[in-house]
Amino acid sequence: MKVSIITIGDEILIGQIVDTNSAFMGRALNDIGCTVEEILSIADERSAIVSALDRSRERSDVVLITGGLGPTKDDVTKEALAEYFGVKHVLNDEILLHIRTYMERKGRPLLESHRSMAMVPENCEILQNEVGTAAAMWFEFEGTIFVSMPGVPYEMKDFMNKQVLPRLSKMTKQQLLHKTLMTAGLGESIIASKIEDVENDLPRHIKLAYLPRVAGVRLRLSGQALGGDLNQEMEDIATEIKMRLGKYHYADEDTTLEAWLGEVLKSRKETLSTAESCTGGNIARILTRIPGASAFYQGSVCTYSNELKMNILGVQPETLQSHGAVSEQTVREMAMGALDLLKTDYTIAVSGVAGPTGGTKEKPVGTVWIAVAGKSGNLHAQKYMYPGSREIIIQGTSQIALNQLRKFIFGLL
Amino acid sequence: MKVSIITIGDEILIGQIVDTNSAFMGRALNDIGCTVEEILSIADERSAIVSALDRSRERSDVVLITGGLGPTKDDVTKEALAEYFGVKHVLNDEILLHIRTYMERKGRPLLESHRSMAMVPENCEILQNEVGTAAAMWFEFEGTIFVSMPGVPYEMKDFMNKQVLPRLSKMTKQQLLHKTLMTAGLGESIIASKIEDVENDLPRHIKLAYLPRVAGVRLRLSGQALGGDLNQEMEDIATEIKMRLGKYHYADEDTTLEAWLGEVLKSRKETLSTAESCTGGNIARILTRIPGASAFYQGSVCTYSNELKMNILGVQPETLQSHGAVSEQTVREMAMGALDLLKTDYTIAVSGVAGPTGGTKEKPVGTVWIAVAGKSGNLHAQKYMYPGSREIIIQGTSQIALNQLRKFIFGLL
Repeated sequence: MKVSIITIGDEILIGQIVDTNSAFMGRALNDIGCTVEEILSIADERSAIVSALDRSRERSDVVLITGGLGPTKDDVTKEALAEYFGVKHVLNDEILLHIRTYMERKGRPLLESHRSMAMVPENCEILQNEVGTAAAMWFEFEGTIFVSMPGVPYEMKDFMNKQVLPRLSKMTKQQLLHKTLMTAGLGESIIASKIEDVENDLPRHIKLAYLPRVAGVRLRLSGQALGGDLNQEMEDIATEIKMRLGKYHYADEDTTLEAWLGEVLKSRKETLSTAESCTGGNIARILTRIPGASAFYQGSVCTYSNELKMNILGVQPETLQSHGAVSEQTVREMAMGALDLLKTDYTIAVSGVAGPTGGTKEKPVGTVWIAVAGKSGNLHAQKYMYPGSREIIIQGTSQIALNQLRKFIFGLL
Repeated sequence: MKVSIITIGDEILIGQIVDTNSAFMGRALNDIGCTVEEILSIADERSAIVSALDRSRERSDVVLITGGLGPTKDDVTKEALAEYFGVKHVLNDEILLHIRTYMERKGRPLLESHRSMAMVPENCEILQNEVGTAAAMWFEFEGTIFVSMPGVPYEMKDFMNKQVLPRLSKMTKQQLLHKTLMTAGLGESIIASKIEDVENDLPRHIKLAYLPRVAGVRLRLSGQALGGDLNQEMEDIATEIKMRLGKYHYADEDTTLEAWLGEVLKSRKETLSTAESCTGGNIARILTRIPGASAFYQGSVCTYSNELKMNILGVQPETLQSHGAVSEQTVREMAMGALDLLKTDYTIAVSGVAGPTGGTKEKPVGTVWIAVAGKSGNLHAQKYMYPGSREIIIQGTSQIALNQLRKFIFGLL
């Protein structure tokens, strides 16, 4: 079943708010086998709304509309709907009663503006609002379903989950599946070249999407079918892709490298620490963003200055003098010092030139040394060149460092 | 000038990602006096793209397009543009050279798929990508401007800020001025009540926008006029607002608390360190995001576990036993330990319950102790309750801690 989404509100167009409603609706609709044709965000203007309704109807079986149902002057969605359907705009006692009860429960008076919220196009079926005042409206007009909901996210979600999705899912027959493969350490283009033939041989009802992230790419297979074992068919394709990607693939679910690593460490009852310089605590920050990180993450030192590299991590002055802070020798000593000081099973040490200044001919901006080490004594240090802005270098280096730890733990280095 | 935005990508329609690009573009365009007519999000399909281009052109002088410029099969934007303009799809040597150089700097090979990234509609003007590979394209077609950019947010922002916005703003004649006032430590509503009359007396051609950030609000005055001394007029209003806000206002330019603090410390030739627990390195990360941070920032320790609080910062076991990790005594000892270990002029120590678990009746999730101290021996510790999700608590606490340092340095505590 094809669905179009219309989100109404000037605040969306001037970027005052990010439209998160559409993403929620897209996911939810997708889960019940509906295909979202497009998302159209428009201003609180009758003409814009009418034109959007017209366009969406041409393309879809269902049109979901959010926003513009409030009590204020700039809320014109219902007038626009009445105009579009060519019906009267009438007072609905059912809604008025609901609002009155709702306000009484809150110990608030019923205001004149609330009456305007009880005005609806006469051809609508009312969906009552269980968490707020504005009702939603269900229309069937010349074979197309239109549903108009409030734009307040938790009200919209309540309508979707309890009333709209259940009704729509009854109407859809088609099965729809997604499989996500997480990869790290390869760019989009290289992955594409590795699986080119798999991609070329994809049946028409299965699509592959590349979703690039910093220093990693999510691969998403989406399949639609009326019968047959779609799941098995997609499983086989996923298996083939994983074979091609080998050690660059790390998970079969939509996750992040840090969350996945956290689970690995927890299950192995092992701990991690970090010794950062150019990433300035970003790796620590990425790891501690994970709820329950304390189960595997002990802490970190961010030795931004050479003094601290020496005083806290015990990097030798000679090392810094002869090789510099951005060198294999320095990150090696940082890693050993961190294991010694922080007493964890693993540690990651990073030192590099994040720029924009501080680059030299031998060590241009983007030069980064990363060491991963275990208390067993194993240590692996590698040099990277990560071009880009300071922020990109910090983000990219952090992800590469986490990926180095993954490879270190599983003997892939 | 009227602008339509088209965002292309199946991942938007199935809600796998939230489209934040449109909000950024909406704000930026609004700032240079452009009106966003509508935002249309569509699938990676030629027909959908062509139809969207057609609709947007009817409504706008400028059409900004993001997404679908990658090297993979699902990226069809350029083919669709060529089809729409009725021109050939040709190889552009300039882009190919740029990609080759970019990949060489990364030490990666040039792949066949990269050639496809160098294919563009022959009627386009190339905008080179300074932070990635995919070029943007500028078209002028029958009086309408079309600009196609990559969907990767930081690449799109780089194109907008450095190339697209400057060109568009030249085309809008009106004199347009912005003045930004940075505040910290007050909520929107309290600020609104403090400057209510100033806001009510604003002339029609000057607008005031509240741009809330974590634990702070940016106030932006935007003035549009064809003549007169708009600058002086806005300056007077800004002065009045600053008087009302007193110590909660800290800067007259669009900056961040951390960047501003960095400048202050540099000018005073003073240094800073941090000792973090619940913020997990986020304060270090915020500070080191600033180019040249090494001039004032020495480093940090993130003592996530109690062991490290004791072993590295010398927090007394008795303190942790009798008062717990989240207590005035602990942050005090963390701060003193940090000054002792990291030898800086100032330090910030934070310990709290970021959740979602770990909260108790006495110390619910969101309870945070923050200490700021100077080598003079002064120390100020304060307790905060910052409700919200783990991420919000970490972000909010970090900003509050930086604001505490600001007040500590200027004797506002």
